[in-house]
Amino acid sequence: MHTPQNITSSTTSSNLRQFSFIGGSTGPWRISRITAVAGESLGMATRLRIVNEHPETPPTDASWLLRGITSNLRYTTQSESEQLIAKQKGLGRPHATRAALIPLKKSAAWWAMPQDTRRQIFEAQSRHTSIGLKYLPAIARRLHHAYDLGEPFDFLTWFEFAPKDEPHFDELLAELRSSQEWAYVDREVDIRLNRE
Amino acid sequence: MHTPQNITSSTTSSNLRQFSFIGGSTGPWRISRITAVAGESLGMATRLRIVNEHPETPPTDASWLLRGITSNLRYTTQSESEQLIAKQKGLGRPHATRAALIPLKKSAAWWAMPQDTRRQIFEAQSRHTSIGLKYLPAIARRLHHAYDLGEPFDFLTWFEFAPKDEPHFDELLAELRSSQEWAYVDREVDIRLNRE
Repeated sequence: MHTPQNITSSTTSSNLRQFSFIGGSTGPWRISRITAVAGESLGMATRLRIVNEHPETPPTDASWLLRGITSNLRYTTQSESEQLIAKQKGLGRPHATRAALIPLKKSAAWWAMPQDTRRQIFEAQSRHTSIGLKYLPAIARRLHHAYDLGEPFDFLTWFEFAPKDEPHFDELLAELRSSQEWAYVDREVDIRLNRE
Repeated sequence: MHTPQNITSSTTSSNLRQFSFIGGSTGPWRISRITAVAGESLGMATRLRIVNEHPETPPTDASWLLRGITSNLRYTTQSESEQLIAKQKGLGRPHATRAALIPLKKSAAWWAMPQDTRRQIFEAQSRHTSIGLKYLPAIARRLHHAYDLGEPFDFLTWFEFAPKDEPHFDELLAELRSSQEWAYVDREVDIRLNRE
């Protein structure tokens, strides 16, 4: 809605949840590789920056602009949430100088399923949260949703870890990618980065 | 993402899910009343039109522009979905000349709860789907999500029914508004309309 009296109060909280990942020639993160895991890759870029807003168009130096928003939990239960909170660490730890950005798009078949069927595949069959829990606190993460934003990917997940933990991160990805849930992944790109 | 080769293919499906409700002086629906049920109301307008896109700014005649997107089911189970599909009718029935648009915002406390807790309140305590089922097929509806769009409301629900069913629609609202789930509603506006 756009009426002058509403813009400020209504958009503050959602603006704080907005993040954009800009692949170009500037930013604190150096891109070491971009790998297409499923579907089309992304254009080459040497640096990445993350901004807490959603620009309408990419900056002139940018090869790509990916927008996402942090949101409410979609599958996580109270019990799982408590386990995650007890073990997880936040982003920005000084020793966590490696990162990964995994943009991922799921199929129309995934989105057409009712909530209980998706939850069943997500956890009972694929153990998505259980697998993630094993790698805490070494791997810190933040999930950004994009399915409802008109973006080419449905999810953008940002991970940070120490260089010594990159092999464990690769194990985590291998476990998830071999799960039933990944049968519904249409497009996935794996971007690795170093903080400089 | 904005690279020329991706814009067309990536945005088609989400564009079809985008709807905007424009309150102003034109459109096929005449607004009969706008009532603030909780929180601030909306500005006065005489007519409403619905467009299948998300304009960045409201048209010059508009008093307000509300944007939402149809999306995946968030609480509905397979069993509930089958019952709904068996009973519900689509929008646009010739005799359904009355309508209601209910923009609604839930509290931060609602969104902070994990999935199972919200589902528990939504159905086990509040019987949201069960109540809705009782009024099918007389009341047709389409739910639009807006929580992740930076909009002032989290949901925009559009209802269509025959004039003789408006008392039943009021009963439906009364049942829902007396439920535990509605303790988490911070703002709600009730807009009634006639098709001309």
